[in-house]
Amino acid sequence: MTGFEVRPIGHVSSTLTSLADAPRQADEGAPEAWLVLEDPYAAALTGIEPGHDLVVITWLDRADRDTLAVHPRGETDRPLTGVFATRSPSRPNPIGLHDVQVVEVSGTRIRVRALEALDGTPILDVKPVLTPER
Amino acid sequence: MTGFEVRPIGHVSSTLTSLADAPRQADEGAPEAWLVLEDPYAAALTGIEPGHDLVVITWLDRADRDTLAVHPRGETDRPLTGVFATRSPSRPNPIGLHDVQVVEVSGTRIRVRALEALDGTPILDVKPVLTPER
Repeated sequence: MTGFEVRPIGHVSSTLTSLADAPRQADEGAPEAWLVLEDPYAAALTGIEPGHDLVVITWLDRADRDTLAVHPRGETDRPLTGVFATRSPSRPNPIGLHDVQVVEVSGTRIRVRALEALDGTPILDVKPVLTPER
Repeated sequence: MTGFEVRPIGHVSSTLTSLADAPRQADEGAPEAWLVLEDPYAAALTGIEPGHDLVVITWLDRADRDTLAVHPRGETDRPLTGVFATRSPSRPNPIGLHDVQVVEVSGTRIRVRALEALDGTPILDVKPVLTPER
């Protein structure tokens, strides 16, 4: 099947700069961060407000796309498991999903709570957490 | 920022063939469907079993990438809202997120409950719903 081109809509600005410092999941001590969206997407942010719960979709650009199985969480005593059964960043399309809460919206920048993505990580999409109203 | 190439790992096989028939969300009457993954990804499925809850990430190939604001759910009496504040399929990177439950795994095919994606929709990734163990 042919591929598709994803175009980053912005990037993560965070104090997390190395994989060694990054928690595996947001509830394991991730800091606040900014979603810095590019100006052409300003109109796409209308309606996002503090307190909203969002899913941020990122491109985990430092991941390995050729890995098909891993020891979950890097624990070598756990059996090799297919990457589609794990949240490993290494996978054929290294797409990251991050649940965050909006703290502040300032122009095309959104400050969010507890994001485990590294500084500079490209952002592909932002969606509201699903509720019947949306 | 430069783009990245996503490569489909498979596609959706479903009785849903037209946008007119498709429910907006899975809990609005979506049928069972198959995730048909390509053979090279067989090793990436190890560990996926009936009963597991997955997030399926698709490429909504019939969506419009130039739309930045919509009337939510197509209801024109609702105010124009930025696509990042809605679940509209039309968005700069038309990535779909679908929560499903595994019914059956047969080789590289996974049968799932209640998937609202159209027949033929490319699949980019499959992840477990997050639990502390994964």
